[in-house]
Amino acid sequence: MKFCSHCGSAEIELKIPDGDNRARFCCPNCNTIFYENPKIVTGCVVTHEDKVLLCKRAIEPRLGSWTLPAGFMENNETVQQGAARETYEEATATVTDLSLFAVYNLTHISQVYMIFRAELDQPEASPGIESLATEFVLEQDIPWDDLAFPVIDETLKLFFADRKAGEYNVHHGEITRLADRTLRTTRF
Amino acid sequence: MKFCSHCGSAEIELKIPDGDNRARFCCPNCNTIFYENPKIVTGCVVTHEDKVLLCKRAIEPRLGSWTLPAGFMENNETVQQGAARETYEEATATVTDLSLFAVYNLTHISQVYMIFRAELDQPEASPGIESLATEFVLEQDIPWDDLAFPVIDETLKLFFADRKAGEYNVHHGEITRLADRTLRTTRF
Repeated sequence: MKFCSHCGSAEIELKIPDGDNRARFCCPNCNTIFYENPKIVTGCVVTHEDKVLLCKRAIEPRLGSWTLPAGFMENNETVQQGAARETYEEATATVTDLSLFAVYNLTHISQVYMIFRAELDQPEASPGIESLATEFVLEQDIPWDDLAFPVIDETLKLFFADRKAGEYNVHHGEITRLADRTLRTTRF
Repeated sequence: MKFCSHCGSAEIELKIPDGDNRARFCCPNCNTIFYENPKIVTGCVVTHEDKVLLCKRAIEPRLGSWTLPAGFMENNETVQQGAARETYEEATATVTDLSLFAVYNLTHISQVYMIFRAELDQPEASPGIESLATEFVLEQDIPWDDLAFPVIDETLKLFFADRKAGEYNVHHGEITRLADRTLRTTRF
């Protein structure tokens, strides 16, 4: 942030406002404080019989790798509506009756993943504009080495473990980047 | 948004970018697109024996009314850390072992409330800078007509109903503003 988006001043300072305990971008000209907060990424583990719907990414990052349909929650929608919207946009699949399955904190990039379970009566899906392909995949055929993000790998592992155990829970965890830049996954 | 926070241009336009389907603030000078997304409000239903911790608000909106300790999640923390931090900032109470209890979408103001249950061994709390008072309150003494927000009323009702039933669930719902400006609460 280099300029105040309210008054156009170039005097923007990164400082701790009075009564606060964190640095914020502040405009000394019009006294606006700009807060930055985590974003929600919402999506679905969509199943048909014993298969899971995966999408092949048509966009960076990780173009060409496989992922669950998910994306940034938008203003004026519920988390569930966002998860269903992303599933439709990326895989042209219409889901309802979503059940919360995983809440994962990606603290190094300030994202909170909220992933829901959903079932489809028919395995109907086709690539949206952000996907190269969509596929309903058996557990033994999951491309584990070619998944887009660690949070997708973690979510699928939790899903298959719960399915095997015969009971689905709501899972919580954190994925964060360590000093050596490797990522660490922690389940709460 | 009147000025581009990257380049200072005053030519900011609210329009649908190519390949998108929603209006965003766009800078035609440096081609930056500014996305706005929902914020997470995170907090706790803190109990000691059969009492719930309430805070009397020292700040607007709803100064002087009663609420659960909660506030905006910050960057680089987990939702649980945010809930514990807010509980400490507002009530000087140290909570651990949080369990997700309610996820409520306030779609008209693009906030997602994520409220956790937590227990304290000792009823130790005192007002932080944003509270006038803290109190551990029995169900029959909850000031229902003097709670700060509908989402607080809803969360407490769900909490006491689950407690009576002897089983706590994760609850989902939406609170939104209708055309006549009244608020409607829906449980999913």
